[in-house]
Amino acid sequence: MTDLREIGEFGLIRLLTDHSLPHPQVILGPGDDAAVLSIGDRWVLYTTDMLIEDVHFTLKTTTPYQLGQKALAVNLSDIAAMGGQPTFAVVSLGLPPNTSTEFARELYQGMADMAHTHGARVVGGDTVKSSSLIINVALLGETEPGGAVFRNGAKPGDVICVTNTLGDSAAGLALLAANMPGPTAKHLVPQPRVREGRLLLGLATAMIDLSDGLAGDLAHICAQSGVGARIKKELLPISKEVRLVAEALNQDPVQWALRGGEDFELLFTVPPDRVPSKIGPSTVHPIGEIVAEPGIRLIDGETMTVIEGAYDHFRLGDS
Amino acid sequence: MTDLREIGEFGLIRLLTDHSLPHPQVILGPGDDAAVLSIGDRWVLYTTDMLIEDVHFTLKTTTPYQLGQKALAVNLSDIAAMGGQPTFAVVSLGLPPNTSTEFARELYQGMADMAHTHGARVVGGDTVKSSSLIINVALLGETEPGGAVFRNGAKPGDVICVTNTLGDSAAGLALLAANMPGPTAKHLVPQPRVREGRLLLGLATAMIDLSDGLAGDLAHICAQSGVGARIKKELLPISKEVRLVAEALNQDPVQWALRGGEDFELLFTVPPDRVPSKIGPSTVHPIGEIVAEPGIRLIDGETMTVIEGAYDHFRLGDS
Repeated sequence: MTDLREIGEFGLIRLLTDHSLPHPQVILGPGDDAAVLSIGDRWVLYTTDMLIEDVHFTLKTTTPYQLGQKALAVNLSDIAAMGGQPTFAVVSLGLPPNTSTEFARELYQGMADMAHTHGARVVGGDTVKSSSLIINVALLGETEPGGAVFRNGAKPGDVICVTNTLGDSAAGLALLAANMPGPTAKHLVPQPRVREGRLLLGLATAMIDLSDGLAGDLAHICAQSGVGARIKKELLPISKEVRLVAEALNQDPVQWALRGGEDFELLFTVPPDRVPSKIGPSTVHPIGEIVAEPGIRLIDGETMTVIEGAYDHFRLGDS
Repeated sequence: MTDLREIGEFGLIRLLTDHSLPHPQVILGPGDDAAVLSIGDRWVLYTTDMLIEDVHFTLKTTTPYQLGQKALAVNLSDIAAMGGQPTFAVVSLGLPPNTSTEFARELYQGMADMAHTHGARVVGGDTVKSSSLIINVALLGETEPGGAVFRNGAKPGDVICVTNTLGDSAAGLALLAANMPGPTAKHLVPQPRVREGRLLLGLATAMIDLSDGLAGDLAHICAQSGVGARIKKELLPISKEVRLVAEALNQDPVQWALRGGEDFELLFTVPPDRVPSKIGPSTVHPIGEIVAEPGIRLIDGETMTVIEGAYDHFRLGDS
């Protein structure tokens, strides 16, 4: 009998997609960072993410306040990646009965504060008993009708860009796992690029947030746009700090950038004559270009290697 | 240190409510069946519910298809209780990696079919790895601006009504627990009263769906409306089938009606000159009246007893 380890996360998502007739209010169904709905005279974005203790986080290395911030941040990042303004969240919490009220309060405060920072708020939820901590957030966003950036608009010749730096989250996770001091803030509390996403509306031809790592998320853009990509290794924006952490831990920082995941920066494509150097408070780094030939290739000096696509939560590893 | 068993579910909900300033788009925040938002020229309803294996269901007594139907139904029922039309759901699934693709497919199909039956559809979601099965549904609904029924509009003199019969779900649960044959359909696949909720717009002064049992859910209406209630025991609509099951299991069917929960019928109040005998396909049963004096009293012939309010998931029992 086939199980989820064989078909994988992306096989499962295809399996669980409603193949019924188009609906006049559904501009975009499953398969992008958020669904896009036409409600009255507005476009409404709609996303959800579930975080489970000891699968997605451990309470050994995060405070409840940080965890609350992160639970909202990963959803805010999905709305940002569509170019939307996040608006309203509902939160379901599965809590062990011996959870302290202080813990629950701090967890919630982290969620509320992260939402407020980006102009959103928590308007409802559900609390249930559970053996381990489970957090589900559903988040709405709004945008002007017609004003959303999808994954499928990248064209050959477009420049591939990312905001800020890559690999910071993987470096932070590695430090926490090794119980070593160092920069872990971006892993524990990622900063969703909401303002940047809004400013990229009308500029970016395709956009996604970096949740699975550059290789996997770029593969989504390429697959949905019917294109390929060439990335220059020397252009990958990896901070000096991350390089030092990698050296100390005997790891390859390029692999962290390509596959580490959870940086929650924006990955987008833009015509070559429109590449910005900054977008809002964030630096923009061009890292390669979109090509017609399928596949993602990493160029390192004179050598070019095809790199594999997406990280699969059911097939691989334990995160 | 205080924990959730001391403050209970309702203390927790108060703890986790955003007390920041009013927001012009938030017509109603936490504390009703769904949040009510003003988006463009529409009112949008917004609710979420989490179901956890061995807390809310056991795979020993439900098929994946039935479970999918129920996961959607409990959310559809929340939208119905506001008088709204359910529209769009996002679904998060926590699945053990050895889940068969057939199981996942049937679970999803149950959700999609239940949504379609009531004019809604699943537009996105998240799938994550988990040690036990977790299902979170967030659901939107729509209604005309101004056209929602809240919990806080009940007035002394209003007649208290319920749709159809009470205690069926508790009877079904008791049969399944005793491994005895009998009517379990309403426990396994509750039918949300969406059409009825729509028709009660402009008629009901307050409304809630029966998820916790009549005593608990009526307590919510009374608390939020600042009123009390008198219920006549002889008027409680308990089917002959449920009475027979109760007799066979040596249980009190009135307790099932008052505290069993999960009937997902509508409980509503209506001025005495406007009590319908049917609403859509459902029979309406008047069971008592709203009074000014606080508290809920059960009248049994000449005796009148105060009955306690809501079931608390963190304080009591194991469901």
